[in-house]
Amino acid sequence: MSKRQIRLGAFVPGTSQHVAGWRHPQARPQDSHNLKYFIELAKTAERGLFDAYFLADVPVTVDPDTTPDLGLNGTFSAGLEPVSLFSALAAVTEHIGFIATASTTYEAPYNLARKFASLDHLSEGRAAWNVVTTSGSVVSKNYGINDALLPKERYERADEFIEVAQKLWDSWEDDAFEYNKQTGQFFTGEKLHPPRFKGKHLAVHGALNIARPPQGYPVIVQAGQSEDGRELAAKYAEVIFTAQQKLEDAQAFYRDVKSRLIKYGRHADDLKIMPGVSIFVAQTEAEARAKYDELNAYIHPTLGLNLLKQLGGFTEDLSQFDLDQTLPEHLTQAQNGASRQQLILEIARKNNFTIRQLYQWVASARGHWTLIGTPEQIVDQLQAWFENEAADGFNILPPTTPASLDDFVDLVVPELQRRGLFRTAYEGKTLRENLGLKRPENQYVLEKRHTSQAS
Amino acid sequence: MSKRQIRLGAFVPGTSQHVAGWRHPQARPQDSHNLKYFIELAKTAERGLFDAYFLADVPVTVDPDTTPDLGLNGTFSAGLEPVSLFSALAAVTEHIGFIATASTTYEAPYNLARKFASLDHLSEGRAAWNVVTTSGSVVSKNYGINDALLPKERYERADEFIEVAQKLWDSWEDDAFEYNKQTGQFFTGEKLHPPRFKGKHLAVHGALNIARPPQGYPVIVQAGQSEDGRELAAKYAEVIFTAQQKLEDAQAFYRDVKSRLIKYGRHADDLKIMPGVSIFVAQTEAEARAKYDELNAYIHPTLGLNLLKQLGGFTEDLSQFDLDQTLPEHLTQAQNGASRQQLILEIARKNNFTIRQLYQWVASARGHWTLIGTPEQIVDQLQAWFENEAADGFNILPPTTPASLDDFVDLVVPELQRRGLFRTAYEGKTLRENLGLKRPENQYVLEKRHTSQAS
Repeated sequence: MSKRQIRLGAFVPGTSQHVAGWRHPQARPQDSHNLKYFIELAKTAERGLFDAYFLADVPVTVDPDTTPDLGLNGTFSAGLEPVSLFSALAAVTEHIGFIATASTTYEAPYNLARKFASLDHLSEGRAAWNVVTTSGSVVSKNYGINDALLPKERYERADEFIEVAQKLWDSWEDDAFEYNKQTGQFFTGEKLHPPRFKGKHLAVHGALNIARPPQGYPVIVQAGQSEDGRELAAKYAEVIFTAQQKLEDAQAFYRDVKSRLIKYGRHADDLKIMPGVSIFVAQTEAEARAKYDELNAYIHPTLGLNLLKQLGGFTEDLSQFDLDQTLPEHLTQAQNGASRQQLILEIARKNNFTIRQLYQWVASARGHWTLIGTPEQIVDQLQAWFENEAADGFNILPPTTPASLDDFVDLVVPELQRRGLFRTAYEGKTLRENLGLKRPENQYVLEKRHTSQAS
Repeated sequence: MSKRQIRLGAFVPGTSQHVAGWRHPQARPQDSHNLKYFIELAKTAERGLFDAYFLADVPVTVDPDTTPDLGLNGTFSAGLEPVSLFSALAAVTEHIGFIATASTTYEAPYNLARKFASLDHLSEGRAAWNVVTTSGSVVSKNYGINDALLPKERYERADEFIEVAQKLWDSWEDDAFEYNKQTGQFFTGEKLHPPRFKGKHLAVHGALNIARPPQGYPVIVQAGQSEDGRELAAKYAEVIFTAQQKLEDAQAFYRDVKSRLIKYGRHADDLKIMPGVSIFVAQTEAEARAKYDELNAYIHPTLGLNLLKQLGGFTEDLSQFDLDQTLPEHLTQAQNGASRQQLILEIARKNNFTIRQLYQWVASARGHWTLIGTPEQIVDQLQAWFENEAADGFNILPPTTPASLDDFVDLVVPELQRRGLFRTAYEGKTLRENLGLKRPENQYVLEKRHTSQAS
């Protein structure tokens, strides 16, 4: 059996992860809708032997009626739809996988299953679906719905959604299509299985209009941290992206989710846990620190304060305080259940951050783990997490695109390889093969086998 | 002003247009989910200087409970989702446009507008949307809806859908994004326009999360023949695909639709009418005829009869009749309003077709105009329609993929060019430029201009 190695995702939006990353001299925000730019980025990630290119998505953009810092934030404003973009990238890459985010709340299972099956065919088995349940009425109103679903309902719907998506992907057995020119038989009728699904939230009658994906199902990815999110992940997810700051917390999360797999008949290896990590790397620690400071200096104060207020859930207007003092004691936070709120306050107190330092910290990785240092220092940290039940791999968030992605590939990957922690060539042809995940059998074929064994 | 020339669409599914086209020796049905095969096809079409590659789509496949000829029909069974496929093809082609079909009934405007905007960006202005309203409960049940919308409601919804899609594409003015690294201003807030749309069927509150498409809007394509369909086309469509068999009928349709444009403030040139045409071409008429007969001989009789029953709307079981006799007089047809039903009966009577000949005719082009002959004979026909107010161009349906597409490009295109009826090089960079269509102005910019002129 081969040695366990680190898995890597490249979470690389066109306009950078850091809110001011687009202001870096090498950044190319003007190319953020340009396929040729993304081809360059995908080829860099492929040169770095990343398992997959990952993109987040939410069907909403900034709103002039509710966004006080309109026009200052370079992240999440607007961009290409991930499945379409990855379909294009599939045509010009050979190995890298594609993890596209799509919502179980605002898509129909038939449409979503079809487009991910298409991406899996187009890429010859390199597709993955990051399942998100998408909250908030600001999104629901883009779909003519005034009141968004409650978290409980969103997760119920997500559970049904994945179940029926898997049935849709199983509509055709792998060898259903005969293409027999002699007999005129295009496919075998007995190998077609419409889902006939009726759930509480969703119903799908007929079979999917596309052959079974090369990977059986696209790899299922999930990022929920809540109790409902963890349970959904334990049932279905094959990769989890998680935001963890501290080794002990990451270990607790890792053990908790892995221990939940058993009741679903799954093995610990069937799920890869990959915390997000924002990396500033250079040949010396001072240079790495300078890169961090440079990006943070680009953050417009109006933007920084708004971001802090929003992610911290603060109800006060923060611009009334001196930016170069610490946060006042008496601040109140809205109770929306986001685990990042508490974290932000802890970080502020622990580091004795000024408000400016705190918004810089928040803005730089938006609550993700941040590492600043030499390749050796960075890999020491990654290795510690990987070898101590905190991570099976990492989702890399380069603070500025493309410079920080180049840095990671040129500086960190060789150090990972030198220590035998990372591949020196792609092992497999599909994303599942590279991640070390099984190809799921068709559920209707399994059923037939059980029936014939029982009789 | 340049001479008016013929526009061409290539309607080339992976598994062929003719129901038995996949049984042709050169056909590659086993590659019908294979991107590399579609790249070959797109490059052939681009070599032939086609304006656009067109693909139909409907979110349903055959059903074992309702399909008596299960497995015999090679058309419309299963395939790649058109927008995903075209996104991939955009990465490896330079000139050809992409017309993808998508439904106003079973998609949300926000999702549809986003993916078509993405395709337009990915292809640098080569996207088009073929608007279909998608009827029938066999489809609606795939979306958990037991009763499909009535035709009137479908067209009302389609009208609102296109209106709001255009608003979504106009969310950002063309120069909304500044990317000003000096000031930190990513975009100009005043150039962001959320639709705030509330209709009878649809509501969309917020702006689209992607920059305005390079073409302003993707080209709007429509195919409806009904009264509601023609009116919708006159209001919005820039290309119409239509099924016409006879010059006089094609002329009547052409004049009727073009005359409806005026009340929407549109000019006759703003809409290109392109009848579908299935072409069997060879250096001699006998060879062309042999190609036609060869494909028809591949039609499995069970499939032929079912197709005839279905497209003709016949209520009787046709397998009770002698295939080599004409249709009995007393047949009844279900009244579902499809204009092809009457046409099929007329064709049968006029040609004194046997049942086998009739199903062969139906199956070969499914009601589309069929031409069989030498390049000169074919182009004589196309020219007559083009020069006599029956067509601005044609949507070419190659009966078998890839052989009939190769035939068209190698034999018909040179003859069209010799007569000066068709381009010898692409004129423009975008699909709109090649089709000779205007780039629409942003409606909010127009509004501002009117307001400032009025004040």
